[in-house]
Amino acid sequence: MLNAKLFTDVEAAILQEIIRLRRDVRGQRFTDKPLPDDVVDQLLTAALHAPSVGFSQPWEFVLIKDLALRQRVKESFDRANEAALEVFSQRQQEYARLKLEGILEAPLNIAVFYKPPEKPVLGQTTMEETGLYSVVCAVQNLWLMARALNVGVGWVSILDPEKVGRILHAPEGRRLVAYLCIGYADGFYMQPELEILEWERRKERDAAVIYEHYKNL
Amino acid sequence: MLNAKLFTDVEAAILQEIIRLRRDVRGQRFTDKPLPDDVVDQLLTAALHAPSVGFSQPWEFVLIKDLALRQRVKESFDRANEAALEVFSQRQQEYARLKLEGILEAPLNIAVFYKPPEKPVLGQTTMEETGLYSVVCAVQNLWLMARALNVGVGWVSILDPEKVGRILHAPEGRRLVAYLCIGYADGFYMQPELEILEWERRKERDAAVIYEHYKNL
Repeated sequence: MLNAKLFTDVEAAILQEIIRLRRDVRGQRFTDKPLPDDVVDQLLTAALHAPSVGFSQPWEFVLIKDLALRQRVKESFDRANEAALEVFSQRQQEYARLKLEGILEAPLNIAVFYKPPEKPVLGQTTMEETGLYSVVCAVQNLWLMARALNVGVGWVSILDPEKVGRILHAPEGRRLVAYLCIGYADGFYMQPELEILEWERRKERDAAVIYEHYKNL
Repeated sequence: MLNAKLFTDVEAAILQEIIRLRRDVRGQRFTDKPLPDDVVDQLLTAALHAPSVGFSQPWEFVLIKDLALRQRVKESFDRANEAALEVFSQRQQEYARLKLEGILEAPLNIAVFYKPPEKPVLGQTTMEETGLYSVVCAVQNLWLMARALNVGVGWVSILDPEKVGRILHAPEGRRLVAYLCIGYADGFYMQPELEILEWERRKERDAAVIYEHYKNL
């Protein structure tokens, strides 16, 4: 059973490149090219092979193509985005110019929910949030797989998660973790869009890596 | 700027295989083989290229080799694991036989923290938890990269996160997201260990995929 294959340096370098070139894709980039079922299958296969606490697999993927449903989600975005605009007081004009979602432009939306467990889960007894984190791992697997298949994914978080749950008839207790817009893109940027637009800078590695323990300053 | 490369079907298939063969590695599998600095660098590079809400990069990685620090973390695990044993009343013997961490066996531990933002973050204004989720995306990137480099990673969640924060002198407000044990393994299982040991079964795809919206049952 311990005989799973070892990967080569070339294969590891391919993964590093997929990771480096993965992007958040917004509405202005999605094209009309249809998304074949077997591509969607490959995305779901990647998601379903994510790690999960206690192998609990606490995820549910709601695949939405229906335009009326997506329009209702878009309304939730519009409302949340108006509220967000208020928060960025000194950068309002800059914020207002950003295209932050592709709910209607992408041919497929996937709402990813966490389904709380019905019995105790191994590994989740002291850090309950690891259930939600498992769902996030599934989203990241799907996102990387999409990039490898040259499919664009955008994660929309400017939404009222309860509202989206109601639109999709989510049973009591389900929790929206991510709302994804998925489709072919006309291209992929070399860098994150918010970096190109100078909304935010990439941090130095030293700012994120600490040896042994935090130092008292 | 829209000229990032497109990947081939062969490259996409390599990613799918890395995803499928990624495992949670525990103490009994780690070997003495030292972990070169350039391998650790590649793991961090993958983590630092994760998506983050508003490009906020809210992660901090504490690299721990010091044995005394790891022993204190191990004590926190032991206490939390004893408490967990109580929860699995009908499966106590089975639970007690499981090896669930490699804190002392692995040559490197990485504690991954969330650093809350000091100013509003684009995309985080309605779903604050997306900051934590960004850190999880970084962990998943690191984990996949490790598997591609044939390095084992185990995520330990049976810990008191506040206690671990104190051991590592984490400043007020930091939140432990993941505690990782990292090192070369003597092999990788073809399936998740908890599946092999019949602790939990893999779910059918139909149990996790829903079309358009949840159906009233």
